[in-house]
Amino acid sequence: MAYTIGVDYGSNSVRSIVVRCCDGVELGVSVYAYPSGEAGILLDKNDHNLARQHPGDYLEGIRRTVREAVLLATKADQSFSADRVVGIGVDSTGSSPIPVDANNMALALKPEWRGNWDAECWLWKDHTSFKEAARITALCAEHRPEYIAKCGNQYSSEWFWAKIWHCLNVAPEVFDNAYSWVEFCDWIPSVLSGVRDPHAVKRGICAAGHKALYSNDWGGLPDEEFLAMLDPKLAALRGRLYDQAYDASEPAGFLSGEWSDALGLPMGIPIAIGAFDVHYGSIGSGIEEGVFVKVIGTSTCDCGVVKSDTNLADIPGVCGVVDGSILPGYFGIEAGQSAVGDIFAWFVKSVCRGDDALHAELTEEANRMKPGESGLLALDWNNGNRTVLVDPLLTGALIGQTLHTSQAEIYRALIEATAFGARMIMERIESHGVPIERLVCTGGIAEKNPMLMQIYADVCGREIRISQSEQTCALGSAIVAAVLASSEKGGFDDFEGAQAAMSHLKEKAYAPIPENQEIYESLFSLYRKIHDSFGGVEVSDLGRVMKDLLSLKEKVRMNSLELV
Amino acid sequence: MAYTIGVDYGSNSVRSIVVRCCDGVELGVSVYAYPSGEAGILLDKNDHNLARQHPGDYLEGIRRTVREAVLLATKADQSFSADRVVGIGVDSTGSSPIPVDANNMALALKPEWRGNWDAECWLWKDHTSFKEAARITALCAEHRPEYIAKCGNQYSSEWFWAKIWHCLNVAPEVFDNAYSWVEFCDWIPSVLSGVRDPHAVKRGICAAGHKALYSNDWGGLPDEEFLAMLDPKLAALRGRLYDQAYDASEPAGFLSGEWSDALGLPMGIPIAIGAFDVHYGSIGSGIEEGVFVKVIGTSTCDCGVVKSDTNLADIPGVCGVVDGSILPGYFGIEAGQSAVGDIFAWFVKSVCRGDDALHAELTEEANRMKPGESGLLALDWNNGNRTVLVDPLLTGALIGQTLHTSQAEIYRALIEATAFGARMIMERIESHGVPIERLVCTGGIAEKNPMLMQIYADVCGREIRISQSEQTCALGSAIVAAVLASSEKGGFDDFEGAQAAMSHLKEKAYAPIPENQEIYESLFSLYRKIHDSFGGVEVSDLGRVMKDLLSLKEKVRMNSLELV
Repeated sequence: MAYTIGVDYGSNSVRSIVVRCCDGVELGVSVYAYPSGEAGILLDKNDHNLARQHPGDYLEGIRRTVREAVLLATKADQSFSADRVVGIGVDSTGSSPIPVDANNMALALKPEWRGNWDAECWLWKDHTSFKEAARITALCAEHRPEYIAKCGNQYSSEWFWAKIWHCLNVAPEVFDNAYSWVEFCDWIPSVLSGVRDPHAVKRGICAAGHKALYSNDWGGLPDEEFLAMLDPKLAALRGRLYDQAYDASEPAGFLSGEWSDALGLPMGIPIAIGAFDVHYGSIGSGIEEGVFVKVIGTSTCDCGVVKSDTNLADIPGVCGVVDGSILPGYFGIEAGQSAVGDIFAWFVKSVCRGDDALHAELTEEANRMKPGESGLLALDWNNGNRTVLVDPLLTGALIGQTLHTSQAEIYRALIEATAFGARMIMERIESHGVPIERLVCTGGIAEKNPMLMQIYADVCGREIRISQSEQTCALGSAIVAAVLASSEKGGFDDFEGAQAAMSHLKEKAYAPIPENQEIYESLFSLYRKIHDSFGGVEVSDLGRVMKDLLSLKEKVRMNSLELV
Repeated sequence: MAYTIGVDYGSNSVRSIVVRCCDGVELGVSVYAYPSGEAGILLDKNDHNLARQHPGDYLEGIRRTVREAVLLATKADQSFSADRVVGIGVDSTGSSPIPVDANNMALALKPEWRGNWDAECWLWKDHTSFKEAARITALCAEHRPEYIAKCGNQYSSEWFWAKIWHCLNVAPEVFDNAYSWVEFCDWIPSVLSGVRDPHAVKRGICAAGHKALYSNDWGGLPDEEFLAMLDPKLAALRGRLYDQAYDASEPAGFLSGEWSDALGLPMGIPIAIGAFDVHYGSIGSGIEEGVFVKVIGTSTCDCGVVKSDTNLADIPGVCGVVDGSILPGYFGIEAGQSAVGDIFAWFVKSVCRGDDALHAELTEEANRMKPGESGLLALDWNNGNRTVLVDPLLTGALIGQTLHTSQAEIYRALIEATAFGARMIMERIESHGVPIERLVCTGGIAEKNPMLMQIYADVCGREIRISQSEQTCALGSAIVAAVLASSEKGGFDDFEGAQAAMSHLKEKAYAPIPENQEIYESLFSLYRKIHDSFGGVEVSDLGRVMKDLLSLKEKVRMNSLELV
């Protein structure tokens, strides 16, 4: 029997699982909530764009969770023992770059930088660099259109270069003292492997290709001439970053003695190349051509794959199309919505001042409603729009309130808005040559909210299945580790085999309900109208939007009455 | 010493006051909450458009409140006694038509109609007849454009003919048994005068001109040919309505023996012609040329006057321009917003599930905010738009929410939305030749919410004063009664003199704050954009609305930081 460990760094906590390679059974799960800041995030109440994290939490987290997961596995499976662990895979949020010194030490771990938040990890959801992102977009459009053609023609404030440039602009002392910058998902494997030199950190193609404008088409990272247009110091940094990025067929390194002791695992076992949570999560959800994986949590990340030899056009507004970023030999396509669960949580907590009990109550009430009967329509942009408009400066909207509109109606309208947003993404991707036959969803909300899943099926018009694992990201990391370990050590020789054995779906399938689909077609056409109007895509006539919503409302209510 | 009594029928209660003619001092105030339905209104949870009221509540209400007000006045002023009351004035909500039999008895008071809500008073806010209203608008546009040119080119579902026609369509048995229909404000004076014949009911020009398409220009009510296009039964009804309507220079009648006994007042004293609450309220607020009176409560009613010899163009989208409807010798101009306080109440009660304490808390919090700092913008159409779009099929909108938007920010945005709506109305009226030099506000919200008044002053760019009386409608009715009584009986010979003596303003003046005005100019231009887009006025580019809100937010927050 062979086992691998998957370590998944989320936005608020890290979890580690021990997985049995032969069947994917998860024997031990351990979660550690980052102790710093608010729910693990350093937030500034005067600047809502700021979000940082403390790398020390990451190291303490992996130490504790791997040890505990191993302990639990030992209790759960008599054939398990720590020396049967044949590999570790790590995924994390991103783009979350960490400034490091010449020894690959995170600046934030050094006493002299304590309390300086610009020296911490710049969490994915930090949007302080929106001006830099806009400038990068403009410069690319003028000088290097190819750079952003594959990432939606918009560079995001969530991404690598914008964040580093913003650091240079607002905290030059941090920038000047950072020998290099390493993505969170690359940094953890490098630390586990005992890498003390930033040049030796093996970077994953996932973060590099999707967030750092890396491509073999132009020889790696953006060229110095281009970076010098941003700032000569960024051009100078290029040489201290990396020339080559790797897909999941290559290990990031092997477990060092120090970390073998810390984790209680065999020294020298392979450590998978780091990738973003969702990319490995899609592997844990059984991604293949024709399957679109949605990880639905506070925000949504969507992944698709299509064979590398496909003649794929650039997909406007889609965050990235990168060869090998998910499965080796396939283009990985990443898209997403900047806020999903976060919107519902905002509504319940900030607007209704409610708690989990109210979530449950509103879900139950909203579940009894029919599509269209509230007359409401919302835009899901409370945290900007990541795909397909790629615009952090968009905000939410709610249309159609009357004096009788209830909390639960608004709650449902917000859920529907996220479903419409999801459909916009799917339509864009599919129209550019990526087949989507069915959806596999995973993540906290997909697990726990059947109402939401049914709405998504009705709005998107496709069957939806849910991953069996509650930890698909960690599971995906464990699967990658199992492939790296190879069949010789009890792992697998390819991803197909590893996924077939280790990733599973729940039996329940959400099929679209035809009468709901029909109403949602009408609502979606109205959604598209306000989406395109407020999104600046086109000037359209909104003069009938409210009336159309009211007609639909009346129609639905009349039908309901007839059925009674 | 002479005294008059003003009786004001609101949406949920009736209040009567005894007023001393020489100085307008209010000696006794008595309020009676209508006992029927929810807060006095018969509501149907399956049809949010329906709102009816029981006329029996009106009669019981006037009996109780006049007697109590007289009792209180006796205690308050030694020179007062009931026989010194020289007149009564009555105002009510409207258009609220009541079906009556051939004896001027409300059908709803007859046992055989008990429980039939279509036989009750059709309260102003009943919108069940929206389809009939749209049809009347269309027919007028085609055949009698002059009919609706003076009421905004749109006939409203709140008005006389739409309601009666709807009754004919949905409850023909009620229609067929109604000998005539009498406006609430006309019916009460007719009852007090002992009028037993609907033909003898003296109708006020206010309700007739603003809501029933009555004008001397075309010989009174709409002609039979036109009414027959609606329904031949409406053409037949015309002869059982009225040929002549009167302004406030004419009494509706004189107190009958029966009602002299019931109220304990001298028989034969004059009863003023009935008018809508706000019209008499504007008299109670000292309306004159250049003064725009806003009664701010659950909804808003706005009144302006301009001399009858002014060459006044029709004002598109304004509910009515009627000669003599407020002050004899002046055009009365009526406008309004379908929901103001109702929107705040909806938000606090239905969305936040809060109470008066939350209102107070949000007011305090919102008061600390600066214009523009929330990045929010709302449309005040939760109950449709009465002026200037005259469209009940419009609904609310909230734009600009982020994950950090708070309850108080939304609360303030809703208040601002009503202020922008108020400004739209003023701009429309002023641009058509009605001067507006300053605002006088009255009504519950104007009294109690200094934050709101300051926002209105800042948004509208004009000084605002508040009526001293808390009962301006009842006071206005008492003023009209004092003019009817004439100086001979201790009253007045003209409105100017009566208003000068009897109506007063509070000392506090709300002056626009220049820096707020500047921000609100920007916000108002964005409001106008979404107003015109969703209102179907013009197709405009909304692609920058959210970004402009965010820029404004950033600017305001930066300025605030600089000031710290």
